[in-house]
Amino acid sequence: MPKRVGRYTVSLPNRPAVTGFAAVVGKKEGEGPLAKYVDFIYDDTTLGESSWEKAESHMQSDAVSRALESASLSASELDYIFAGDLLNQCIGSSYALKELDVPYIGLFGACSTMAESIALASIFVESRAANTCAAATSSHFCSAERQFRFPLEYGGQRTPSSQHTATAAGCAIIRDQGEGPYISNVTFGRMVDLGVKDINNMGSAMAPAAAATISDFLKDTGTNASDYDLILTGDLSLVGTKLLKDLLIRDQIDIKDKHADCGLLLYDIKKQDMHAGGSGCGCSAAVLCSYIFKNMRKGNLNEVLFVGTGALMSPVSIQQGDSIPSVAHLVHFSNSKGEA
Amino acid sequence: MPKRVGRYTVSLPNRPAVTGFAAVVGKKEGEGPLAKYVDFIYDDTTLGESSWEKAESHMQSDAVSRALESASLSASELDYIFAGDLLNQCIGSSYALKELDVPYIGLFGACSTMAESIALASIFVESRAANTCAAATSSHFCSAERQFRFPLEYGGQRTPSSQHTATAAGCAIIRDQGEGPYISNVTFGRMVDLGVKDINNMGSAMAPAAAATISDFLKDTGTNASDYDLILTGDLSLVGTKLLKDLLIRDQIDIKDKHADCGLLLYDIKKQDMHAGGSGCGCSAAVLCSYIFKNMRKGNLNEVLFVGTGALMSPVSIQQGDSIPSVAHLVHFSNSKGEA
Repeated sequence: MPKRVGRYTVSLPNRPAVTGFAAVVGKKEGEGPLAKYVDFIYDDTTLGESSWEKAESHMQSDAVSRALESASLSASELDYIFAGDLLNQCIGSSYALKELDVPYIGLFGACSTMAESIALASIFVESRAANTCAAATSSHFCSAERQFRFPLEYGGQRTPSSQHTATAAGCAIIRDQGEGPYISNVTFGRMVDLGVKDINNMGSAMAPAAAATISDFLKDTGTNASDYDLILTGDLSLVGTKLLKDLLIRDQIDIKDKHADCGLLLYDIKKQDMHAGGSGCGCSAAVLCSYIFKNMRKGNLNEVLFVGTGALMSPVSIQQGDSIPSVAHLVHFSNSKGEA
Repeated sequence: MPKRVGRYTVSLPNRPAVTGFAAVVGKKEGEGPLAKYVDFIYDDTTLGESSWEKAESHMQSDAVSRALESASLSASELDYIFAGDLLNQCIGSSYALKELDVPYIGLFGACSTMAESIALASIFVESRAANTCAAATSSHFCSAERQFRFPLEYGGQRTPSSQHTATAAGCAIIRDQGEGPYISNVTFGRMVDLGVKDINNMGSAMAPAAAATISDFLKDTGTNASDYDLILTGDLSLVGTKLLKDLLIRDQIDIKDKHADCGLLLYDIKKQDMHAGGSGCGCSAAVLCSYIFKNMRKGNLNEVLFVGTGALMSPVSIQQGDSIPSVAHLVHFSNSKGEA
């Protein structure tokens, strides 16, 4: 059963298992360094659909089907699906999943959605409110650009600090037992807003939230950064990564040898001209559900902290001059099932 | 601990308690029949803010403060707050709650948000993942109109089947013990889409989802509509209510003596010219967190099924010719704490 540890962390002694997972990505992401780890690369990022929004839903639906297949399950064996995305009213998820006939728990956590959905699913499984859950999310460069920035046809120039919304989707299947990795702990984050108002610098807006959640988790569990093989943020990219390290050093937490960021892993940012790196719900979802979980299964990584970061503004709040509140949720994955 | 009952329902033997609640509403809602039950009526629906979105956040923040006060708690005693709303990227909630410094679990369930948030909070409390949670949501007529329909200045005419987004917010505090009502069972719904495409007839789009969830719950628990004092939907209003009753009769479920709808309770729809009735996340939240909970505490109602219904489309999906997927989540409130 779930057990509260410290002020903010919930320990899961039975350690729910990630028994299946899948990641699907667009053409540009498929030209990046993680190409060999993902399940499918779409050469045509319309996916044959008549709109970018429909393409995103199609992609998320594919990720769920492939994750179910990798867990040797059918949708009818799922108790719940936890999902959300960046599109207004989360239509990326609702239209992707409406045919599944699975109880649907809709989330909005912006780019923290993959961490939020896995954390919720694992608490449901640990507490026996569910036996089997899916956690899914997606983002699409073209649907996000026109909603948050400019229509593609405008040909807008991007600032060096801006991040590129990944065309990608990921899904993880969480069960009470089966092949791992396993989920040992989760920490849901508090919102942090240090006053950043630049929508082209979301890494800086989100870094303080990531720092707060990482610091909370380490304090709650009495562990150090050195106890983990990897502390993986998604997605702070270049600017936010530097700020995160600086913020944590003030708390005497040094993550420099342990840290990686999904937004910097998904692309070769120099060669691919990706400015500060990748972002979008699908970015961390796809990196986690391919490169990370596969390296955990191979034993190359054993203890991983996955910290999903979300910027909770909207174009309207930015136009009204508001700063960007952010949140970071943490999931601790382990290769050992534990003793419970 | 949570216990699965049948295919879709989770029973909560310890019955988490709604130890505090509050509802705040706008001027028009304050002229309706529930005025004497709500905690506060804003004569000025700008709440002194410079935008409708900020007014909505202000209102949700007020509802949370008042609910905490009614439970004699401070925000620092909350383990989690579950919240969401209708605005793009759920800014109604994020800007309302960012200063609370409480772990934030963002949801998107459209008008089902109050049921979704209470259901999640009660599973967290039952499983001891949390001791104390808040569940909150809001909607504002003016922020919703310009986002989903037309700017107010346009003076658009409404169809008879259209619903009026309530200017209202509600919050419930869920704890492991304390004064009730208590939460006995929850059922998360599956998405249903029977092809309705008319954004001015959302009651019809949502009724099939409500019918499915009510039918699932009764089957799972082996109970009948007659076992409950009230089956409360939020919000199907006139058109959807008729359809819900017709759909359930086909399953031999007769709710006609037990049913009420939050969208029809909040206003005197004829006198106030409210067309088919009220809607919006805040509508069912405010009705539940005032009239319903107060009547439960008085013993006028003992067993209540609260069925929050959400239409999961967006203006973009409607413009692209898509139909409206809907979902309904159910929370079973009881006046007795139970034996566990």
